[in-house]
Amino acid sequence: MEQVLQLSYALDTFYFLMSGALVMWMAAGFAMLEAGLVRSKNTTEILAKNVGLFAIACIMYMLVGYNIMYPGEAVNSFFPGISFLIGGDNAVASVIAGGDDAPYYSGMSDFFFQVVFVATAMSVVSGAVAERMKLMAFFAFAIVFTAFIYPMQGFWKWGGGFLDGLGFLDFAGSGVVHMAGASAALAGVLLLGARKGKYGANGESRAIPGANLPLATLGTFILWLGWFGFNGGSELKISNVEEANAVAMVFVNTLMAAAGGVIGALLMSKIKFGKADLTMMLNGALAGLVAITAEPLTPTALEATLIGLVGGIIVVLAILIIDAKFKIDDPVGAISVHGVVGIFGLIAVTFTNPDASIVAQLTGIGVIFAWVFVTSLIVWGIIKAVMGIRVTEEEEYEGVDQSECGMEAYPEFTK
Amino acid sequence: MEQVLQLSYALDTFYFLMSGALVMWMAAGFAMLEAGLVRSKNTTEILAKNVGLFAIACIMYMLVGYNIMYPGEAVNSFFPGISFLIGGDNAVASVIAGGDDAPYYSGMSDFFFQVVFVATAMSVVSGAVAERMKLMAFFAFAIVFTAFIYPMQGFWKWGGGFLDGLGFLDFAGSGVVHMAGASAALAGVLLLGARKGKYGANGESRAIPGANLPLATLGTFILWLGWFGFNGGSELKISNVEEANAVAMVFVNTLMAAAGGVIGALLMSKIKFGKADLTMMLNGALAGLVAITAEPLTPTALEATLIGLVGGIIVVLAILIIDAKFKIDDPVGAISVHGVVGIFGLIAVTFTNPDASIVAQLTGIGVIFAWVFVTSLIVWGIIKAVMGIRVTEEEEYEGVDQSECGMEAYPEFTK
Amino acid sequence: MEQVLQLSYALDTFYFLMSGALVMWMAAGFAMLEAGLVRSKNTTEILAKNVGLFAIACIMYMLVGYNIMYPGEAVNSFFPGISFLIGGDNAVASVIAGGDDAPYYSGMSDFFFQVVFVATAMSVVSGAVAERMKLMAFFAFAIVFTAFIYPMQGFWKWGGGFLDGLGFLDFAGSGVVHMAGASAALAGVLLLGARKGKYGANGESRAIPGANLPLATLGTFILWLGWFGFNGGSELKISNVEEANAVAMVFVNTLMAAAGGVIGALLMSKIKFGKADLTMMLNGALAGLVAITAEPLTPTALEATLIGLVGGIIVVLAILIIDAKFKIDDPVGAISVHGVVGIFGLIAVTFTNPDASIVAQLTGIGVIFAWVFVTSLIVWGIIKAVMGIRVTEEEEYEGVDQSECGMEAYPEFTK
Repeated sequence: MEQVLQLSYALDTFYFLMSGALVMWMAAGFAMLEAGLVRSKNTTEILAKNVGLFAIACIMYMLVGYNIMYPGEAVNSFFPGISFLIGGDNAVASVIAGGDDAPYYSGMSDFFFQVVFVATAMSVVSGAVAERMKLMAFFAFAIVFTAFIYPMQGFWKWGGGFLDGLGFLDFAGSGVVHMAGASAALAGVLLLGARKGKYGANGESRAIPGANLPLATLGTFILWLGWFGFNGGSELKISNVEEANAVAMVFVNTLMAAAGGVIGALLMSKIKFGKADLTMMLNGALAGLVAITAEPLTPTALEATLIGLVGGIIVVLAILIIDAKFKIDDPVGAISVHGVVGIFGLIAVTFTNPDASIVAQLTGIGVIFAWVFVTSLIVWGIIKAVMGIRVTEEEEYEGVDQSECGMEAYPEFTK
Repeated sequence: MEQVLQLSYALDTFYFLMSGALVMWMAAGFAMLEAGLVRSKNTTEILAKNVGLFAIACIMYMLVGYNIMYPGEAVNSFFPGISFLIGGDNAVASVIAGGDDAPYYSGMSDFFFQVVFVATAMSVVSGAVAERMKLMAFFAFAIVFTAFIYPMQGFWKWGGGFLDGLGFLDFAGSGVVHMAGASAALAGVLLLGARKGKYGANGESRAIPGANLPLATLGTFILWLGWFGFNGGSELKISNVEEANAVAMVFVNTLMAAAGGVIGALLMSKIKFGKADLTMMLNGALAGLVAITAEPLTPTALEATLIGLVGGIIVVLAILIIDAKFKIDDPVGAISVHGVVGIFGLIAVTFTNPDASIVAQLTGIGVIFAWVFVTSLIVWGIIKAVMGIRVTEEEEYEGVDQSECGMEAYPEFTK
Repeated sequence: MEQVLQLSYALDTFYFLMSGALVMWMAAGFAMLEAGLVRSKNTTEILAKNVGLFAIACIMYMLVGYNIMYPGEAVNSFFPGISFLIGGDNAVASVIAGGDDAPYYSGMSDFFFQVVFVATAMSVVSGAVAERMKLMAFFAFAIVFTAFIYPMQGFWKWGGGFLDGLGFLDFAGSGVVHMAGASAALAGVLLLGARKGKYGANGESRAIPGANLPLATLGTFILWLGWFGFNGGSELKISNVEEANAVAMVFVNTLMAAAGGVIGALLMSKIKFGKADLTMMLNGALAGLVAITAEPLTPTALEATLIGLVGGIIVVLAILIIDAKFKIDDPVGAISVHGVVGIFGLIAVTFTNPDASIVAQLTGIGVIFAWVFVTSLIVWGIIKAVMGIRVTEEEEYEGVDQSECGMEAYPEFTK
């Protein structure tokens, strides 16, 4: 019997580690997606940003964030307390004793899985502020976001805080991860302003095409693959029939929602532009994934497809409106994909999960947005005052690759 | 005891899901391979095609195809009957009772694994018709192929139909997936015709080099990795010593066949051209993989290497002959890699598997080819009559990226 | 009980196969990293080199190397004896009997995991000799290295030879894999000489920028992901609580060391150049990974981060010194990343593992370096005498893509 328990512990740990590895791979997805959607003169910098933010997220979450989000004993349901460093404690002994509260997988595998989520949230930010932000200002923000801003609201939901108590449902983080990232991005973009030349004298929006669409497509496929770990791993257990079925259902629904999102965006772009707009199709896939993330378990495969489809339709409209109407310059559409569709995903939980309440969902949306947006605005504001957040006009014209990194991404391809 | 059964169910389900995730990743591989092998002016469109076909495959197989291929109760061994939607039934209860027919893994994980195979078959088609087909015509074909054409012949073999009854052996789909895809591609190419300028006034073939070979190489490595899920998962079970050994053997043979294919193609290209032709080496790797897919379990590692080696030799010859002699314009060599080598793989089953008969193998080859080629020809023909399948000469000259997607893949790199 | 043993065997086998698949994926990582860091005119050739070496490594290790490294019965602790072909023996029966020496996972899964390590070691070499070596000379060396040079020293440590007996510790191969690869690379580079134009008339070093930094970044992320299999799989077992905890710890430390490496290199490049040098950050990530590979289990997550950080600092200094002071032309910095930092990693074992002795570590470093460097020098020398190892000056000027492969990597992007 004990041996079966041990094996079960091993399988759940392995499932966590594989899921975490898939989510880690999403870091590459964001890097490629964003690198493909910016101009060549800003490509090196966005790559450096993505590599750097991932490293910062890992270190800050290890030092501070993990303990804030999952405190041994929280001060109260709003404030978890602050402590440092993940413990080396892997809770080996208690699992054998086998009480109901015994850990059933390695604590380190839990950290591994959680830390790559933080990096995902932070990756959402990097695309929105592309092509004009100072790299070091971005890294300064990343330190605060991954150590403190993200873990606080993560605690409120996943760490057992008050949002969880209110019945707010967010399976794998349409809100806690994606909308949180988008809220921080929005705050940054508002302080940063649009790229030079993005809006004409009469306020008309000008398209600034990305330099490398195969790269953007690769990034989308990477994210699609990684999302199986993101959602699939969030079931948190696989070692019995019921849990295995649940994980399988989550995989299928994640797949189908992305497929639906592609089709939704394809239809919208045929209607709007008369063409199959590739970047919209890619954003459609991601929108489908973000939309299903709040509840990938209770929908049927058909319902998941439809939720994704609506996500794909919404994202095309959101990108067009945010750009043309609000004049918010988000080069990769991150605020639409992760923010607007994240909100839709949180509301869509109520379509299929009888335990969901629209009030709790709206409360969660409001709290997460308010917390992340306000604290981010403060932090971006302080960074702006202290060191500045925007490169000079001349640096922007020359490209941030030269000013921030001192090297070109494609020295032989562009004049 | 029951707990061990549950754990076993969980492990087999997890193995299915990881295998399926690897196969899903092959969608990215085909996208990168094809995007690397076409000209830059046709790159956005082939990316859109790959993203779109994957979404269509998922949705149509979920709605119709899966139930055709794996009917609860087939009408007869030729015609499975038509029904809609995968069920939500995960067969939880019966596994505990544990009769011999009890499902030993989640039904949803089976769907997840199967659906990515359909997408693979459809991906084979997209490369062959590159650079001149209307995108919407391609998507229309994809709907019929993934909903009906593929699942019918899949039922005949894997769903328990008459090809299975005849003793036709096809472990992971050299025939059901790869040759089926190539047969549909051939039908399309014959109706479509060659690219403008591909064949000179005297009928001589002109090389049209791909725009981005690192991308093509990346795609090949992705496919190589994904193939471990494709073949490895097709053992369908891993949870005891015998099955675990079988899966490990399949992994090793898949690896070795690809290695053999690289060397076979390298040798041939040194002999033929005096150089190490990279695109031939990549096709060699894929040929090795296609060749071993029909039987990756019974060969020794050395035999698998040799089967792959022969596959790599064949593919170089096939590409040259199909191009120069038959004047069939297949920009990425898909018909050679998946069709010609797929046939070789099906025959090679008889080299190492004592249960195989050459008659059954040839029957299977004939049936799958006839079914897929004829039905595809009809469907392509109808699409051609209704909406046309080829872009105008001017659109082809300008590149299908502009006409179909309205955007360039590399706006800053090319004049 | 027997059923539990079987399940345990299946889980450990699956863990091996997934780890091996991740390591195989590193082949793509090296290919992309190196292709991104060379000039466009030498890109096709380095891709062909990476695809070819992987195939050669698989075949030679299957034919000879595996049996040298893990002999059934070694002649003595220095010389394992030579035999051919991995066996088909999967040791099915004995596991059920369950003696202490019974295999607890499939022998074929062990081969699968080991063979991808050989390819990794060989990949280290390819970058260092980029842009001027004859492709066939490289392949000739690859045959000897993967069949004989690597397996011999692998036997000394992991096959139970004398280095293992001396107490030399090298968990996953900072020495056996990375430093071994770097030693072979150094021998090759010394015989080969620098690229034309690399050093000016006064001996000053000139930067030769890589053509495609997104590709190099992708390669780094691939390697980072693959390293979870490389280190995580080297625990060799996961099926009980203790082992599962160990594997999880290894995953976390691998992640953190890479993160530390990025930050170390970022700080150094800000100090040295005043900019965030992307290629140094990528080398920093790899340096962190190489540094932790010799001992990813005993450090805490914080210690792992610091070991990585120091690795990241060292690699920047090493690259600058090896280039400017020693005038050793290593286009991708492979000797610094895998050699210099590999040595640091082997020494760093003594920081956290009480079983390590500095004498044993230095002995291991000395033995591996001496063996690989001397034998490689001899083999490179013979190849040089027989067929030459360097392309002509004109071929180098035109690019090795034309002379070796007969095709351009980016025919439309560069003049």
